[in-house]
Amino acid sequence: MTTETTSGKLVRTQGVTAPLGFRAAGLAAGIKASGKPDLALVLNEGPEYAAAGVFTRNQVKAAPVLWSQQVLSSGRLRAVILNSGGANACTGPGGFQDTHQTAEELAKVLSNWGAETGAGEIAVCSTGLIGDRLPMDKLLPAITEIVHEMGGGISGGTDAAHAIMTTDTVPKEVAFHHRDKWNVGGMAKGAGMLAPSLATMLVVLTTDAVATAEQLDSALRKATRLTFDRLDVDGSCSTNDTVLLLANGASAVTPSQEELDAAVLAVCDDLAAQLMADAEGVTKRVRVFVKGAADEDEALIAARAIARDSLVKTALFGSDPNWGRVLAAVGIAPITLDANRISVSFNGNPVCVDSVGAPGARQVDLSGADIDVLVELNVGSGEAMVRTTDLSHGYVEENSAYSS
Amino acid sequence: MTTETTSGKLVRTQGVTAPLGFRAAGLAAGIKASGKPDLALVLNEGPEYAAAGVFTRNQVKAAPVLWSQQVLSSGRLRAVILNSGGANACTGPGGFQDTHQTAEELAKVLSNWGAETGAGEIAVCSTGLIGDRLPMDKLLPAITEIVHEMGGGISGGTDAAHAIMTTDTVPKEVAFHHRDKWNVGGMAKGAGMLAPSLATMLVVLTTDAVATAEQLDSALRKATRLTFDRLDVDGSCSTNDTVLLLANGASAVTPSQEELDAAVLAVCDDLAAQLMADAEGVTKRVRVFVKGAADEDEALIAARAIARDSLVKTALFGSDPNWGRVLAAVGIAPITLDANRISVSFNGNPVCVDSVGAPGARQVDLSGADIDVLVELNVGSGEAMVRTTDLSHGYVEENSAYSS
Repeated sequence: MTTETTSGKLVRTQGVTAPLGFRAAGLAAGIKASGKPDLALVLNEGPEYAAAGVFTRNQVKAAPVLWSQQVLSSGRLRAVILNSGGANACTGPGGFQDTHQTAEELAKVLSNWGAETGAGEIAVCSTGLIGDRLPMDKLLPAITEIVHEMGGGISGGTDAAHAIMTTDTVPKEVAFHHRDKWNVGGMAKGAGMLAPSLATMLVVLTTDAVATAEQLDSALRKATRLTFDRLDVDGSCSTNDTVLLLANGASAVTPSQEELDAAVLAVCDDLAAQLMADAEGVTKRVRVFVKGAADEDEALIAARAIARDSLVKTALFGSDPNWGRVLAAVGIAPITLDANRISVSFNGNPVCVDSVGAPGARQVDLSGADIDVLVELNVGSGEAMVRTTDLSHGYVEENSAYSS
Repeated sequence: MTTETTSGKLVRTQGVTAPLGFRAAGLAAGIKASGKPDLALVLNEGPEYAAAGVFTRNQVKAAPVLWSQQVLSSGRLRAVILNSGGANACTGPGGFQDTHQTAEELAKVLSNWGAETGAGEIAVCSTGLIGDRLPMDKLLPAITEIVHEMGGGISGGTDAAHAIMTTDTVPKEVAFHHRDKWNVGGMAKGAGMLAPSLATMLVVLTTDAVATAEQLDSALRKATRLTFDRLDVDGSCSTNDTVLLLANGASAVTPSQEELDAAVLAVCDDLAAQLMADAEGVTKRVRVFVKGAADEDEALIAARAIARDSLVKTALFGSDPNWGRVLAAVGIAPITLDANRISVSFNGNPVCVDSVGAPGARQVDLSGADIDVLVELNVGSGEAMVRTTDLSHGYVEENSAYSS
């Protein structure tokens, strides 16, 4: 899929290796019992190594999150190593030592291979079941193998995108090619604020633009605030969520902050849409728009309250235009409301006007896979959109049938 | 079921007519398409008419809630009329007029029957689908009928408990007989903070103790805070939730505030347990205990966060001792935590000690219907308990298959 914009084009068949000067690989290290790919590597070949990251807001943070936050304080990254098959969360000091040793081993192998690297320049990401130690006897030998497998082409990025999947059914990749000849690429897995099965959201973004760590940090925070932070399948938030952005300046183009912001936002927005579409058990892709709130913060609180409401979500699973549940959900949100001036529409059909049902409201057809819910509060001009899904039998099945 | 306590006994075969001087009735007025009972009445025969109420915190309040709040400002109630089959919420000024007219009609019929009553002494409660007007052509004539059907015995209370059911599978009644010869009775339906299908929690409590409206209010607020407010199936909160307590002094016994508090708490606690056991789609009855929080408020926030977490609830449905999801849920709660000192046990079996998995944690048997989750935060001495349920296929089915 290719989408043209005024400043460039978005392509879904390419990911982290679309920008110049990045290599990646993915392989099966034997961490997953299934034998599926479970180890991924992204290497920045320079000439620059600026980087930024955002991490889970959960107070219970996995060992790789604690490690990578510490590493990122330098604003510099040479490589990211990611594993699926185990979250390495709630594993105590031994688990932190495993993460440290993973970075040390990768630094040693990369340096031997010719890319002089310190462990303090390597971010580590993990995803999988909380509470179990990683099988280091399998992980460590695989590090030599994955460094030797790294390719500079598009296929390396796709292999990496496969290797970070847990309950994902498809890999998620996208690249933005700016008309001024610089690029942003990205891959994602699972879910962040969505957290189906706590299948942690991991995202790695790369760019060959020239940018400082501060510029990257600014672009990344603006983009995640509007995209991954507004993707809410079940209100959960993993111990391992990580989004990283690496820049190497290989294109020799220095975009303005605005251009960088826009490109990073476009890539994050597309990856967020891909995550929503592949969320566990999803049968409906839902966007909740709130307008007319006191301010943007209150619009977001309201949109999230609706997106998280189990009764709204089960109604949408049943294609039931049950707008009363939307009003009940927004009514319990701690925001400024005029309880008599709330209006709701589903896919553009008004179902409730000034807090009273509209004619034909019960007959609105929501049988399609895409549902837009618009709630107008009529108290101000704040607005926000949150992406969510329905609450289906598939969600219950995937999250109850096995530990994940 | 009868439970003896040091101060009296709790009996589940009696309800609002267990105390002296209360009559009740229930019948089918034709509001429900199914033809099942849908109209209930509770009458206080005096000699006193003190009353108190607590109502939904939802900003979107149904017409009967707005009406009953207004009526209760006098601290006096002669009667409560309740209907299932329609919430009369989001029905505009016309819906409020319907509630008003219901109270006027009941006042007229009661006065003709010999119990001089004004509309301003009558509380109205409704439950059912949001957004539709009530069929007043069926409701109004049934008021004469129900006044004439009222019985003074236990059966009237049971008929009333049946008539307020929506998706409930059994009526909920209980009575507390104090050894000093005064009584508290109660009936409940549906759910409050649980709100499955927004099947609103309606509770009417009666007592023949001598008590002022202020004493009733104090006892009721203390009891609901510890019982109905801590029953949380899906975090939703209906537009119609109402809990009323009526006292007539017919026993001529004046209990102390402490005795009144204890009796009202015992009745509310038992009704809350009955509501949990009959929640939609429930296959597990779950109690989440949090200890060692900074204070009681923070313990409650943590317990609620766990009780509302879809991933915890689906794991419990699957009898899966997935303690990592409990840690992830508590970690996102906005409270004081030491992320390395959290311990969890399921039904008394330690599964996580100081934030690390305990030996045998994955083998703990949760196949029974009752699951106690204990989380120790080790930062203070605050504690709280919240009742909840699992998230099952039955829940999804009941809430997606039809408008309710």
